[in-house]
This record gives sequence, structure tokens and C-alpha cells, in this order.
Amino acid sequence: MDPAAGKHSQPSAGSVGIVTPQRMRFEEPLPLRCGRSIGPYELVYETYGELNAARTNAVLVCHALSGDHHAAGYHGPEDRKPGWWDNCIGPGKPIDTRRFFVVSLNNLGGCAGSTGPASTNPETGRPYGPDFPIVTVPDWVASQARLADRLGIERWAAVVGGSLGGMQALQWAIDQPQRVRHAVVIAAAPKLSAQNIAFNEVARQAIFADPDFHGGRFYEHGVVPRRGLALARMLGHITYLSDDVMRAKFGRELRAGRIGYGFDVEFQVESYLRYQGARFVERFDANTYLLMTKALDYFDPAADHGDDLAEALRRARARFLVLSFTSDWRFAPARSREIVKALLDAGREVSYAEIEAHHGHDAFLMPIPHYHRILRGYLARVAEEVGA
Amino acid sequence: MDPAAGKHSQPSAGSVGIVTPQRMRFEEPLPLRCGRSIGPYELVYETYGELNAARTNAVLVCHALSGDHHAAGYHGPEDRKPGWWDNCIGPGKPIDTRRFFVVSLNNLGGCAGSTGPASTNPETGRPYGPDFPIVTVPDWVASQARLADRLGIERWAAVVGGSLGGMQALQWAIDQPQRVRHAVVIAAAPKLSAQNIAFNEVARQAIFADPDFHGGRFYEHGVVPRRGLALARMLGHITYLSDDVMRAKFGRELRAGRIGYGFDVEFQVESYLRYQGARFVERFDANTYLLMTKALDYFDPAADHGDDLAEALRRARARFLVLSFTSDWRFAPARSREIVKALLDAGREVSYAEIEAHHGHDAFLMPIPHYHRILRGYLARVAEEVGA
Repeated sequence: MDPAAGKHSQPSAGSVGIVTPQRMRFEEPLPLRCGRSIGPYELVYETYGELNAARTNAVLVCHALSGDHHAAGYHGPEDRKPGWWDNCIGPGKPIDTRRFFVVSLNNLGGCAGSTGPASTNPETGRPYGPDFPIVTVPDWVASQARLADRLGIERWAAVVGGSLGGMQALQWAIDQPQRVRHAVVIAAAPKLSAQNIAFNEVARQAIFADPDFHGGRFYEHGVVPRRGLALARMLGHITYLSDDVMRAKFGRELRAGRIGYGFDVEFQVESYLRYQGARFVERFDANTYLLMTKALDYFDPAADHGDDLAEALRRARARFLVLSFTSDWRFAPARSREIVKALLDAGREVSYAEIEAHHGHDAFLMPIPHYHRILRGYLARVAEEVGA
Repeated sequence: MDPAAGKHSQPSAGSVGIVTPQRMRFEEPLPLRCGRSIGPYELVYETYGELNAARTNAVLVCHALSGDHHAAGYHGPEDRKPGWWDNCIGPGKPIDTRRFFVVSLNNLGGCAGSTGPASTNPETGRPYGPDFPIVTVPDWVASQARLADRLGIERWAAVVGGSLGGMQALQWAIDQPQRVRHAVVIAAAPKLSAQNIAFNEVARQAIFADPDFHGGRFYEHGVVPRRGLALARMLGHITYLSDDVMRAKFGRELRAGRIGYGFDVEFQVESYLRYQGARFVERFDANTYLLMTKALDYFDPAADHGDDLAEALRRARARFLVLSFTSDWRFAPARSREIVKALLDAGREVSYAEIEAHHGHDAFLMPIPHYHRILRGYLARVAEEVGA
């Protein structure tokens, strides 16, 4: 048991402890959907738990828009915050590292160590910046399959993800049917709505409008488009939270207790958003943000199959767990039900639960008891199935 | 019948024709909620129809965030677009100018001719810019009451408005109980939610972040914070439309018919938003936008009455019509029902209708038959009551 485990850890569950990111280099260029290719490239990843002798107990965790490979544990004894899904991954936790070998990577195009826009373009000797190719969810699946090859994982016991991560789980089941036993698709959608795309577009325009963006070549100017990226993040946060949880968290509370009749930060919610925006620019790359929003906008597995999602899913061999959250208005339960319907139409086996939660889209990151109970139960059966 | 009448006009209804804005100057400074005062100041307004001899048939129309005094008719024979609520105001229309004398003004702090941030500050000889005082909904009601005095209108047959305009109608009923016979409160809320404030805050930050904003003194730099104001408007538009109407209008349609794998405008919804943003900066002032969002954030009539809206409304003497639209997620029907509940708790007379509409918040500007039928019927009874 790690005494440093976050407050969200369950008392009966432990931490994976201190973990060290690893790095894998791929010399052969990866052909991408956009028609270009990328390579050589590197992927940074972490693993938790141990691969069993039969190599049947591997679980791939895919990250969402602003996530990375650091999903669980700590990077050092001084680390105050664990990985982004530490409440869910660890010994005794829903993704139980006593039974599973968990792999979590930073996606291609990311900014946490994998090859991305801030990496050096070997052709120019300068950062890729805007020359980094557009990467899509199918491209990520292909890059993750290569990582699986190198780790000696023929077939994942499960591919698991929330939001954009859930989309990767869905795409895995379609593109690599023989390599996925179970796909766990949480708080996702089969494709973005016009409103989803609209929010992404405003976020992108905020970044483009920042004079420090320099057409994506800000690295060479020694600046960062802080204001644009912070705006994008602020806007994102509004869509991650439900109106209800915002009311519960902030209401109309005034920081100073009374109206100031000016433009300084006044309401608690303004303070929260400005803080989230300012903190984000310290750790995230604006070009990566642009790429991630495009990967979301382009995600549409049905498009390759005559706009028929059931047809796309007929290729899948995995069994599915689909989860949604009642107050999620970014990818509402109705969007998950579209996936479930298509899976049933395709004759696939699917379990579905709509979890009562007031947190909005962010619920997929929260240790909500009903949610974790379902995930724990489902994955325990998967573990038994693979002899883990 | 005006042959130039917009496509939204009903065949049986006419246009008020060509109208000329008028201007009223007020020498005496107006004390404001923020503790400062403004004056001398000017208000630009239009009138449609004729004031009857008994002066009982006057209707005040209050505008929303980006509206102005030009609510109906045309400014000249070459004008292609009529005023913003032309489908509702005119001979034979729901606000029937054959019976009512309609007054529509540009609010204080506006940018369509009334004294606002772009006006010259008499104390400095330069534009007010950021020195323009914060104006609130109660301040607007006070300024509108002075206009009514000068027009010889002792009591409005009705005060009517949608969104921020509806908030003014509500405030009129509370602050000037003897001067309002009927208050028509459309697509409004008793106060903003944390989510509403959050969207306003991101819009403001987008404007502040634009280097052409120059702390609000952009007039003196000969520039306009186009990018910031356009972003604010794009974001606004997302909140004005329902997810459904966006799906119906744009779906995931690609302008070029196929994915371009880049950051040029691709989806129709992106094109729409960029166009709306670009068009808005041609006509709207960034400082006014900031003021309007603050007037929204601060609106909270219950706050003056122990946070009890019913207590606030107990002062009112008007009768009320409250209207909401099913797909409005900016000020959802539940927010209108809060107003209705408080009115009933206060023993006030109120009619309420929730109108089936897929347009989102923008529905209040649309000629939806059920909506216009209710408004027409209600106002016809008002006209009879006042002998118009």
C-alpha cells in the first residue's frame, strides 16, 4: 500500500507505486490516413503489473484529448499527484494490476515524450511544428499495434478508454478484430456532432488567433501561444462539466463576497477557468492540441463502411462494455446508445450501463462507485477468461 | 404591404416600412448601480405605430446582447435586411403597429448610436473605452424610464423582450410597478447559471487576449480586436443553437465533399461560425460586448430581496406572459419555470407556455407559428384592455 496514494483511492486498493516511463523507437515509417507517413518515430509508455507467461493478460489503456502515458502511480517519491487514472488502475482497483499487465502510451502527435509537433523533424533539423502530419484514430491504432508487436502481445485481453480513448477502443475492435478480446468504450460517441466540432473549431481558432502561435512555429520564436491555448482549455472545461456540477461547485459565488463592477475575476467559476487555463499551458503543446481536436473531428468509423456503423462493427470479434454518464452533454448517453444499437445490429455481444453521475463528461475520470463496480466486475470476468 | 419585407414575414402581415432612428439627449447624469454616474448621455430609438390620445398603447421592446434599436422596418429603400424582430413587429403582426405605439431603443453602453464606450468622454475628449461605467439591467430600466417620461408615456401597455431583453421586462415590473401593465418575458432566466457565466468569461478572455484590444483603447490605435470579438461571437453562436438544429443545418457535411487533413475550414459548421464571427466584428464594438456580458452576469433581481425572487416580484403590479423554447439550453425552460413559480408564489398573474422548437435559444427570434400565435393572442387582449 502506498501512503502517497491519491485521496480517490479506495482504502482496500493500493498504488502501483513508482513507475518509470519507457521509450520504444520505430525505424520503419508508419503510413497515415492523410496520405503521408511518419518515421522514424518514438512512443513513450508505461506498464503496470506483469505479463503472464501465456501473454494473455495485457490491457491497453488509451488516453483522451489531454492525457498521456502516465495513467497510474508516481514518477518519484516527491510526486504529489499520481497518473490520470490512478483511481482505476492498481492492485485491487478495477483495472487490477495483480491480474493484468497494463500498457499505457502517449499517442503519436502527443507532447509528453512520444514523437509529436515539438520533436525534431529529421528532414529539416527543426521542430515539426505545423508540418507534423494529421494523425487519426486509425493511425493511432496502427501505431499501438506495432507497440503490441514489440511487447510480444498478440492479443489484448481488453482495450479500454474514455472519451477519445473509448474511440480508440472501438477502432481497435474494427481494425484489428483478432487482437482484441474485449473493448471497453466509456463516455464516447461513434462520431462527433456538429456542436462538438463547433466547440473544437472555436478552440482551434483561439490558438490560431494568438500572435505567439506564429503559424505553429512558436518553438523557434522562444514563445508559447499561452493565451490561445488557455482559452481553448477554458472552453474545453465548460464542456467537460455538467451545468449541475458547475452549480454545485461554484454556483454564483463571488470570490470577494460582493460584486466589483469590473472585469477582474469575480465569480468562483471565472477563477476556476482562468486557473485551469493557466495551468494547462505549462504542460501542453498547442500544436498537439490542434492535432487531437482534428483526430476527434475526423473520427467516424462508419464512414469507411457506407456510413453504416453496424456494417463497420460486423468485422469486430471482441465483446464490448459500453458505459455512459447521465449528465455528460459532450458525449451524451444517447451517443453511447448509438454504439450499442449498432453493435446489436451487427450481432455483437455488448453490455451497456448508463451511470447516474452529476459530473458531466469528466465523470469517466471519477471513482464513482457504481461505475467502478461495473468495470471491476466486467474485468474480473475477463481476467478469469484469460487465466490471469 | 412592403414588397421588400423579409421572407419571414407572414403573407397577411405588412412592414412598418422605412423608419428613421431618433435621438434623445439627457443632460442630467444617471446614477448607476456601480456607484458612478453617466451623463450627459444620448439614447437612439425608433418608434413604430402611433401613440393614441390617451397614451395607453405604448409597448417597449428591449433588445438582447447584440441587438439594437432597429427592431422593425428598413432604414432606406436599398436596405436588404429589416430590423431584427421584423417578423414580430408591424401591421398585422403579433406586436401590431396598427394598435400599438412601439418604442425600441439602443441601450446605454451600446454601439449603435446610444452613448457607449466608443462615444467621446466629455471629461477627457477621448472615447470612453474601458472607462465607460459598468451598466446593469436596473440601470437600463432607469434610463428607459427617463425616455418614457420624455415621450409622455406614463405607463407601458407592455414591456417585451427576449433573452437579456426579457430580463429587462422582468426588472421593469419590479422596479417600476406602476408603469408596466404587462411584462412579456421570453427565453430568459431569473439569473445566469455558473455555466452561463463561464461561457461569458471565455468570451471576455478572448477579447482581452487580442493584442489589438489595447486594454480597451483600440479606437485610439486605429484598430479593432477582430480576432477576439469574432471568437466571442463564434462561441455565442454555439450556445444560441441547439445540438439538434446544428445537426439539421450542418450535420457533418464537408464543404469540399471530402476530408482535407488540414486546418483549413472543412466542415460546414466551421464555415458558418467563421462567417458569423467575421460579420459580427464589422458591426459590433468589443467594449460593448464586454459590458453586455457583465450586465447578464450581474442580473439577479432576487439578490436585492434576500435571494428570494418571489419576494422581489411581490412588488410587481404587472401581469406576465412567460415563454420558453424546448431546445433552448442557454436559458432552458426550467429557468423560465423558476420565474413562473416565483410569480405564482408572489400571487402574481402569469401565463406560461413552453414552445416546441428545435432552434435552441435563437427560437425567440424565429416566426414559429405556435409562438407567434400565443404572442398575438396575448397582445390582442392587451390592446383591447387599453382601448387600442
